[in-house]
Amino acid sequence: MDAIEIVLLYDYYGDLLTDRQKECFEMRYYQDLSLGEIASELGISRQGVHENLSRAEALLRNMETKTGCVQRDQTCRKVAGVILESARLLRQNEDPVVSALAEKIVSAAQSLEE
Amino acid sequence: MDAIEIVLLYDYYGDLLTDRQKECFEMRYYQDLSLGEIASELGISRQGVHENLSRAEALLRNMETKTGCVQRDQTCRKVAGVILESARLLRQNEDPVVSALAEKIVSAAQSLEE
Repeated sequence: MDAIEIVLLYDYYGDLLTDRQKECFEMRYYQDLSLGEIASELGISRQGVHENLSRAEALLRNMETKTGCVQRDQTCRKVAGVILESARLLRQNEDPVVSALAEKIVSAAQSLEE
Repeated sequence: MDAIEIVLLYDYYGDLLTDRQKECFEMRYYQDLSLGEIASELGISRQGVHENLSRAEALLRNMETKTGCVQRDQTCRKVAGVILESARLLRQNEDPVVSALAEKIVSAAQSLEE
């Protein structure tokens, strides 16, 4: 799993981690620090950092395997994008009834993309 | 939290429970058995059933508090319903370009409602 994927999982499931796991995770993936740098920053061993990160990543992956929430949400956003594309074309229609209905669709679909 | 809500959470997060918690949960909420009946069926104490159910329900609620996945998915379905309503009206439009675009929206939105 690459960094982009694991950070995406963290966005959804990060609150399930311990405070220490969160610290290690954010220093590793947001601040791009090495294990040694994190260890020195937190005053724990390099091995301790490694264990916190491993457990955090295993938990995040397990959560997604068991619940599929990220996958489902990503699908929802993707489909909203497909809907928006057609709805924006319809919104330009000269018939005001068509464009008003299309506007309703656009604004609903946009709320899913956020 | 009522039974409908907790069963909805179980649909999403049930795989995170232990096998014993799942057994107790399903006998309680799907088969509507009493604690005493579940205890006798599983050959464990009534207190044991109670603890399994309490832990299961606490985990399900905690998962939703921490991740909000069910809420997000329910919102997605609800918005898909709103989109469908307008798109079905547009699909009846006599302009074939309008109805074809509306058909694309209908089929995309239906995939979100499933």
